[in-house]
Amino acid sequence: MGLIVQKFGGTSVADSEKIKNVARAVIKEKLSGNDVVTVVSAMGHTTDGLVKLASEITSKPSPREMDMLLSTGEQISMSLLAMAINELGYKAISLTGLQAGIKTENCHMCARILDINTQKIQKCLKDDYIVIVAGFQGVCADNEITTLGRGGSDTTAVALACALKADRCDIYSDVEGVYTADPRVVKTAKKLKEISYEEMLELARVGANVLHPRSVETAKLNKMPMRVRSSFKLDDLGTLIIGVDEMELNKPVTGLACDTSQVRIVICDIVDEPGNAAKLFNLLANENLSVDMIIQSYARHQKNTNDIAFTIAKSDIDKFNKIKDKINDILSASNIFIDEDIVKVSIVGAGMIDRPGIAATMFDTLAKENINIKMISTSEIKISCLVEKKYSNQAALALCKVFELDGANVADVKGDLPVL
Amino acid sequence: MGLIVQKFGGTSVADSEKIKNVARAVIKEKLSGNDVVTVVSAMGHTTDGLVKLASEITSKPSPREMDMLLSTGEQISMSLLAMAINELGYKAISLTGLQAGIKTENCHMCARILDINTQKIQKCLKDDYIVIVAGFQGVCADNEITTLGRGGSDTTAVALACALKADRCDIYSDVEGVYTADPRVVKTAKKLKEISYEEMLELARVGANVLHPRSVETAKLNKMPMRVRSSFKLDDLGTLIIGVDEMELNKPVTGLACDTSQVRIVICDIVDEPGNAAKLFNLLANENLSVDMIIQSYARHQKNTNDIAFTIAKSDIDKFNKIKDKINDILSASNIFIDEDIVKVSIVGAGMIDRPGIAATMFDTLAKENINIKMISTSEIKISCLVEKKYSNQAALALCKVFELDGANVADVKGDLPVL
Repeated sequence: MGLIVQKFGGTSVADSEKIKNVARAVIKEKLSGNDVVTVVSAMGHTTDGLVKLASEITSKPSPREMDMLLSTGEQISMSLLAMAINELGYKAISLTGLQAGIKTENCHMCARILDINTQKIQKCLKDDYIVIVAGFQGVCADNEITTLGRGGSDTTAVALACALKADRCDIYSDVEGVYTADPRVVKTAKKLKEISYEEMLELARVGANVLHPRSVETAKLNKMPMRVRSSFKLDDLGTLIIGVDEMELNKPVTGLACDTSQVRIVICDIVDEPGNAAKLFNLLANENLSVDMIIQSYARHQKNTNDIAFTIAKSDIDKFNKIKDKINDILSASNIFIDEDIVKVSIVGAGMIDRPGIAATMFDTLAKENINIKMISTSEIKISCLVEKKYSNQAALALCKVFELDGANVADVKGDLPVL
Repeated sequence: MGLIVQKFGGTSVADSEKIKNVARAVIKEKLSGNDVVTVVSAMGHTTDGLVKLASEITSKPSPREMDMLLSTGEQISMSLLAMAINELGYKAISLTGLQAGIKTENCHMCARILDINTQKIQKCLKDDYIVIVAGFQGVCADNEITTLGRGGSDTTAVALACALKADRCDIYSDVEGVYTADPRVVKTAKKLKEISYEEMLELARVGANVLHPRSVETAKLNKMPMRVRSSFKLDDLGTLIIGVDEMELNKPVTGLACDTSQVRIVICDIVDEPGNAAKLFNLLANENLSVDMIIQSYARHQKNTNDIAFTIAKSDIDKFNKIKDKINDILSASNIFIDEDIVKVSIVGAGMIDRPGIAATMFDTLAKENINIKMISTSEIKISCLVEKKYSNQAALALCKVFELDGANVADVKGDLPVL
């Protein structure tokens, strides 16, 4: 007999009928002989509704009170799920973050889990209960309620799975697994049977909204196998996420993602003095602005100046505009412009480590499509290119074809590609 | 500088505009120089909405999970109120039942408060916060969430006022105070400036839905002055509820209430043997059926039998029907009938203790109106008569006139009334 931790997202528990459906899925796992701990998100648009209520009252709610408000969403869905399981004749008990022993940092709206005291959960499992735990929340010192920020319920599930030494962590949602590319764009995109933590992480970071990177990182650290699967197709095993060492690597590129949530900022003609880049990125860091891609181009037009370009999240534009003048003052730039007309197209694959030429193939493919590359960034298992937004789908389709991310063909990419 | 505990009911916090209004009321009290602890109920119909969700899932929800579900209602309203107070520039912090230190019995959906550890509230008050506390909820052993049942938020407020040794407990709602009779029926009903705990208790028990008896009992035990006042008319002081010894008693009857929430049950021809009544009421008690008025009529038609009639809450009819056959078996009654066509008309007044003749005047008044009395019950400061439902308003108007509960006249009832 094993222990499975499951997580059901907001769409899976959006109304009472769907909650009954989830109850059946939970019981199915229990009947297969496993102990079950189920993490739930808030029902459908509950969180949005609560955020709207707060926004009617204040434009700058206290993070502590927002956590107090938002944490009710999961408390509602978990108690209803426990009732639905009871109704089908099985024992179930719901636990808040506090009751489940989830301790977080002393921080609101984006707390990290520090520790889980699993005593109460263990006791409930021993008493043969299916244990339902509120996702997205915990408590810090003095029983203050905290929430984990975006993707919090995934993180709760993985952290619980690790703390309970579960056999697997299943993330149920309305998608059937991880695809090679967005199936809404690339109609022939394939569902992956398995993917490595590293690839999943890169895909998550470059805009594939399947899993939050934090949850994948935690799973990777603890070697916790995860499954991404559909709560509406229970017989479909979805995609298994495991260690790269446990996978048979047969393709250099596993997946592709397009991210339109970023904007490019270009700061022109910064005097080329040591420390100017540091000044700039310190200013950004002080505003809590996360920067993604960075390019510095040297020695322009024989003037002793550089251009620096970088990308930030579209949602951070307001923050940036607040310090724009200050940046100008300090760096005496000739111009600062914000380019919203971009998309970041990324390919990800653990197999590209020892396959030279993947980057060159990517650039070549885009060139053949007459798509100009504005910025490039790479990691060991990822290559991202910034291009004009209108080319998003065209680039995705062309790259999927070249890297065989479409169709049923799972053969190797041919060998003689030029080295990057 | 004093300490005021306030409670705002569901209608007062029904939407974001009303929550802003409550925030102004809270700040008004704070600005008058007092420390303020504010207890809130769930917004408007939130609780009904949650109950409906549960009912879509199961017809017999676990009480524990219902408490988990329902306790979110107050958590939502309290965090929004804290935000609204912050928005107006004042410090506020919201606390769940657990955080506020409210310990209850180990029982769900109708727990009683056992103890309040006021440490956290005291600390927040010391730090100059307005403290918002979730009404209706607490925790029992192992941090299990409990709720207090009907009228729970009133009870939370009074219990907090007592534990904090507050100067007063103000219950704000959509009524402007306690009236001599229901103003919707008796247009000339007067708002009372003050009323004793004992009178308020009797009025609450006989169907005046202003305050839950439990909260009044707690206030009485602790001699905590309460005010019932309107959250929409802040300059109106409403009705003060105080000890009878602090009042100037100038009228024998303070108020009148009509209760249509009961039904009369008549059990005919029970053999007149010792112990039969005990058997009957034991059966009822085992089903958790609360009985109000009881009449036993002896030696009917020279048969050696009695009739026993009593009233129960309309909502308990199902429970009663389940044991009806059993009652018949044990008592061999000739007939058991349920009479839903009744209203209980009650007059209440601490002044009737040393004023003879009040009951007689009541019966006389009803007789003059040709209203037949089906049952009578009395306490030291209350007389209730059961009459046909259609006479409810007629009886109320006639009794208000006789006992001067209408108009602006606050003079004594004239002396020469016959003794009961």
